[in-house]
Amino acid sequence: MTVRMSKVERQKLLKEKINTNPFYTDDELAEMFGVSVQTIRLDRMELGIPEVRERIKSVAEENYQKVRTITGSEVVGELIDLELGKRGISIFEPTEDMVFVKTKIVKGQYIYSQAESLAMSVIDASAALIGVANIKYKFPVKVGDRLVAKAEVIRQRGNKYFVWVKIKVKDREVFRGKFILVAIDEDFLKKRSDTVEVSD
Amino acid sequence: MTVRMSKVERQKLLKEKINTNPFYTDDELAEMFGVSVQTIRLDRMELGIPEVRERIKSVAEENYQKVRTITGSEVVGELIDLELGKRGISIFEPTEDMVFVKTKIVKGQYIYSQAESLAMSVIDASAALIGVANIKYKFPVKVGDRLVAKAEVIRQRGNKYFVWVKIKVKDREVFRGKFILVAIDEDFLKKRSDTVEVSD
Repeated sequence: MTVRMSKVERQKLLKEKINTNPFYTDDELAEMFGVSVQTIRLDRMELGIPEVRERIKSVAEENYQKVRTITGSEVVGELIDLELGKRGISIFEPTEDMVFVKTKIVKGQYIYSQAESLAMSVIDASAALIGVANIKYKFPVKVGDRLVAKAEVIRQRGNKYFVWVKIKVKDREVFRGKFILVAIDEDFLKKRSDTVEVSD
Repeated sequence: MTVRMSKVERQKLLKEKINTNPFYTDDELAEMFGVSVQTIRLDRMELGIPEVRERIKSVAEENYQKVRTITGSEVVGELIDLELGKRGISIFEPTEDMVFVKTKIVKGQYIYSQAESLAMSVIDASAALIGVANIKYKFPVKVGDRLVAKAEVIRQRGNKYFVWVKIKVKDREVFRGKFILVAIDEDFLKKRSDTVEVSD
């Protein structure tokens, strides 16, 4: 039923699509254009567009520079968007070594790590700690799933930041968490961390 | 002011203490007996009592056999006590690679991992998933801290288990978490995991 577009047309559209959203996978693009994944790969090569993993990395690189509370490399996954103090997005693909031997399901701790480190990244403070986290795992995650986490700073009261993190695999929400972070003074911490009470 | 006891007396008492609780560190024992750590070490050697790390390992070994939901080696830390379906205790000593570069504070994800894996271990089911976790970090944890986590199955409703986990460093509670776990049928999971809804 679909009218096949010419290669020239397709490549023009493909370029546009990737410019708007550099995070489409070849699979997704193939489906979008009704062609094989191989065709998309050839198109990309002809157009000199790197694969999605590379595109993500180059976008993430800039965002790591913006993170204040932690070191960029401590963000679990790739930080593809960051508006400091407001919101951020990260993409994380769990690997074979992260699953429970029995169920082959990705351990909660890894999904939690993505959410926790993203929550830390979005807040605009020189150092911070997690005080509270209320989290819900909605669907099991497996190797091959691509976790897209979105964090939003909901509000700030004094040195406390309320951050919500939602993680999706494709269109399905698999995790959501509400974090309360506490901004701390770095120097103070070095001297007397024993006395910092994070939450009561 | 303290009356020094004889070496024979001390060694007799030391043996008793360690029999009752194999998890005392040399530091703790030295303080208890008002002698140097070196003295305790010599006492242990003469009595043929291995160091605390070894004592913990040998106790933990038996407990790993009892765990049903996950593989024993997946428990973060040493599982020093386990009454399946009721309660369990684990000890975990975070290492240098687990801290935030900036603050030198142990990342929440590692403390969370100890709690999560202990919560999994205590429940008496062939496979399970974490559905919900409500957690609170009360004090920052540093390298050198010895985390003692206690989990208790508070109640069970259908295939849902409510487990509380409290983690202390010495006498201070640093973390507490309420977990809701969902027992799942292993075979069912293998076939149709996509359709397992963990929590609503």
